[in-house]
Amino acid sequence: MLPSNDHVLSVYAGDDGVLSKVQPNSLLIDSSTVDPSISRKVASLAESGGNKFVDAPVSGGVGGAEAGTLTFMVGGSNDAFEESKDVLSLMGTNIVHCGDVGTGEVAKLCNNLLLAISMCGTCEAMNLGAKLGIDPHKLAGILNTSTGRCWSSDTYNPYPGVIETAPSNRGYTGGFGSALMHKDLTLALDAAKSENAASPLGSAAHQIYSLMIAHGAGHKDFSAVIQYLNGEHVDSKGG
Amino acid sequence: MLPSNDHVLSVYAGDDGVLSKVQPNSLLIDSSTVDPSISRKVASLAESGGNKFVDAPVSGGVGGAEAGTLTFMVGGSNDAFEESKDVLSLMGTNIVHCGDVGTGEVAKLCNNLLLAISMCGTCEAMNLGAKLGIDPHKLAGILNTSTGRCWSSDTYNPYPGVIETAPSNRGYTGGFGSALMHKDLTLALDAAKSENAASPLGSAAHQIYSLMIAHGAGHKDFSAVIQYLNGEHVDSKGG
Amino acid sequence: MLPSNDHVLSVYAGDDGVLSKVQPNSLLIDSSTVDPSISRKVASLAESGGNKFVDAPVSGGVGGAEAGTLTFMVGGSNDAFEESKDVLSLMGTNIVHCGDVGTGEVAKLCNNLLLAISMCGTCEAMNLGAKLGIDPHKLAGILNTSTGRCWSSDTYNPYPGVIETAPSNRGYTGGFGSALMHKDLTLALDAAKSENAASPLGSAAHQIYSLMIAHGAGHKDFSAVIQYLNGEHVDSKGG
Amino acid sequence: MLPSNDHVLSVYAGDDGVLSKVQPNSLLIDSSTVDPSISRKVASLAESGGNKFVDAPVSGGVGGAEAGTLTFMVGGSNDAFEESKDVLSLMGTNIVHCGDVGTGEVAKLCNNLLLAISMCGTCEAMNLGAKLGIDPHKLAGILNTSTGRCWSSDTYNPYPGVIETAPSNRGYTGGFGSALMHKDLTLALDAAKSENAASPLGSAAHQIYSLMIAHGAGHKDFSAVIQYLNGEHVDSKGG
Repeated sequence: MLPSNDHVLSVYAGDDGVLSKVQPNSLLIDSSTVDPSISRKVASLAESGGNKFVDAPVSGGVGGAEAGTLTFMVGGSNDAFEESKDVLSLMGTNIVHCGDVGTGEVAKLCNNLLLAISMCGTCEAMNLGAKLGIDPHKLAGILNTSTGRCWSSDTYNPYPGVIETAPSNRGYTGGFGSALMHKDLTLALDAAKSENAASPLGSAAHQIYSLMIAHGAGHKDFSAVIQYLNGEHVDSKGG
Repeated sequence: MLPSNDHVLSVYAGDDGVLSKVQPNSLLIDSSTVDPSISRKVASLAESGGNKFVDAPVSGGVGGAEAGTLTFMVGGSNDAFEESKDVLSLMGTNIVHCGDVGTGEVAKLCNNLLLAISMCGTCEAMNLGAKLGIDPHKLAGILNTSTGRCWSSDTYNPYPGVIETAPSNRGYTGGFGSALMHKDLTLALDAAKSENAASPLGSAAHQIYSLMIAHGAGHKDFSAVIQYLNGEHVDSKGG
Repeated sequence: MLPSNDHVLSVYAGDDGVLSKVQPNSLLIDSSTVDPSISRKVASLAESGGNKFVDAPVSGGVGGAEAGTLTFMVGGSNDAFEESKDVLSLMGTNIVHCGDVGTGEVAKLCNNLLLAISMCGTCEAMNLGAKLGIDPHKLAGILNTSTGRCWSSDTYNPYPGVIETAPSNRGYTGGFGSALMHKDLTLALDAAKSENAASPLGSAAHQIYSLMIAHGAGHKDFSAVIQYLNGEHVDSKGG
Repeated sequence: MLPSNDHVLSVYAGDDGVLSKVQPNSLLIDSSTVDPSISRKVASLAESGGNKFVDAPVSGGVGGAEAGTLTFMVGGSNDAFEESKDVLSLMGTNIVHCGDVGTGEVAKLCNNLLLAISMCGTCEAMNLGAKLGIDPHKLAGILNTSTGRCWSSDTYNPYPGVIETAPSNRGYTGGFGSALMHKDLTLALDAAKSENAASPLGSAAHQIYSLMIAHGAGHKDFSAVIQYLNGEHVDSKGG
């Protein structure tokens, strides 16, 4: 589980890299979140050396890892997927076969693109409602039984006090950091560029997280967008 | 159920308007989707004439109206709400008290703001995934069990073939039109301006629907954003 | 010169308003910055009472007013324009006939829409260049002799030290405030909605100024966007 | 003058690349538009082999090349700049020393970022004005003597008929294509990401050009944004 495209290429395909050392017919599992084209490149090199490769990025966070309840999104051949499942099921409860090599990354990036957008949308809607005088608990209850319903609202609501277990209830700490979401959006938008897939709201969300980092809030949970919309600074509230 | 702020003001408060004719102690129920400040203004005039007023915008569409399963979001006093319930429950199954006068409109506008944003996000994510080579059914399945989960993805998916009952399966016809969503976004953003509530993704979604109208796609279902992202024109596909 | 649409309507057409008192055949000159449709409405009422009306919004700021060098953008008939010129030329050096009633407002709003966008663009370009290691004076010199040339760069550059007379050299004070630019953008976007004229960059600029107000920087000159991009707060630098 | 980062790296530093063949103490001049970090990498390799390198991207287009009136933006040491000038002045009239290696690219990308934004802004303002009823020639005249003044308005106005020599007068053909502007914006935004320099309007402009490509208008001049805002399709008008 490596931090960037360059690290993955270097660890597998660099001088003295994994591919130069590994026994033939090995299964290589990479759980980094990177560009799908990187997974495909490493898989191609692995196969030409007689090995198998799957991309298997993960969701569920530190909590899921500790509890062994992670989700793995796996891209690779049927055989490689089945083989990887034996190992991955020791760490996760949900091992999904997404398709050929690279599609694990595709699923991860598309999910996080939509997650960032729906979180920003939830922050905008909850913030607007509160300013217009509706009780935030009442508003959340309506959204969560209507067409605005989404995970960001019903499970991880950014308005303090609405969902007891959400980071918004502990100063926007201990969740998925804004700087990490910014990194995943960068990967998603880079992949979008390679296909000329327009993503106007994804781009707008990426700019918000970029501004939050510039304003010193990159370490806060990605639901802290609602603070940012109000000009509440890093040290003025919560963490 | 009137189409705009000006119509509501004129029908209630104009010369020969409802307020000048109605018997004292009447309950007035307005189901228009308008600016909350308009509801508050009419309510104030109604009260000074000895009448009661609730705003009660609706969701559920033509289908819900025909089946009597609409949702009404009601703003008004407890008494007025209870009284309105007797009538509204004949037309809807879900009659929600949102708070004081105007909060029915607030709930409606905030829900549709979030709905527009999450629909655009679902379109961007499904479109990107398909271009990057994952099977759209597989991708939808993953989103719908992950943090990207939302009504726009699990009930009304914009990618043709994923959800059988969705407008994307019938040429983006017969649902909630893009021009109507554009109108609701205009109301939400106008209310946002009155409170200086920033809404960067709401604004970006508003611009998309404005461009769709300019490109002749205003009559299509609001999930047709996925067509628009790909430059698929009105007559080239589906309806 | 009144602050908003409602004030103009009320002062001219309210009970005891100007139109109810003025002698027939008078020329009314309104220098407020408002929606063109408001100017047209008042002009129509004035004409039906036998009077003439021109909209004549102004640019040039406090400095231009003191020096008598303002620009007036006038909308009205040829006769009314010529008559207004006698008065306006005492206050301004540039009296422009823009067309029929309302076009003075149109010219003002379109200019300020483009001004806000080119200022944000200049801030983004100067900020990016400085971070990438080019000397800001050198960069400004290149922009100002190339296709990026604009008033925001060559006369009012937002990077401190580039243009001696610009507000960026005095802590972003004493110019045209961000909150005032936000107000003009609101008017421009409202007019754009009435014609379904898409304005994606205008909307993005409007959101930036809305966020700056939320972050306590509404009183700063509108070139302070460059500070905002960097997360430099109100009290940390300059004014 | 090579089309992308990868081509430059490969031509200079690949097996059998220029750097492996060239005589020591040579001056290498690269006029590609690429990421500044690529220029810096190649320069570093060139220097370690005893050679000099300058980045010298160009502006002025096909017309400028034919007439020998190009502008070269040069990044490199004083000595390398002076030496390059002898050659470059045969092709251009404006040879600008921007600073150290890479700053030629920085200047080019920052200028084109601002150019794209001011062109989109000019399109939005001219389109809005025309819809609101002001004569476009009149509006352009006002903008060009006011604070909205920019090259995109006074020299290359996107509204047909305003500037005789502009591509808008010949069906948006023969200028700088939208797909090429999209490519330069991609490079500018990639460089912005490397420095976490927020660019909300640059991102919005990038999305517009991405959508134009998706809608089949990538071959049109980059001022055709004004057609796009109105839903005028590729074959319906002009080229």
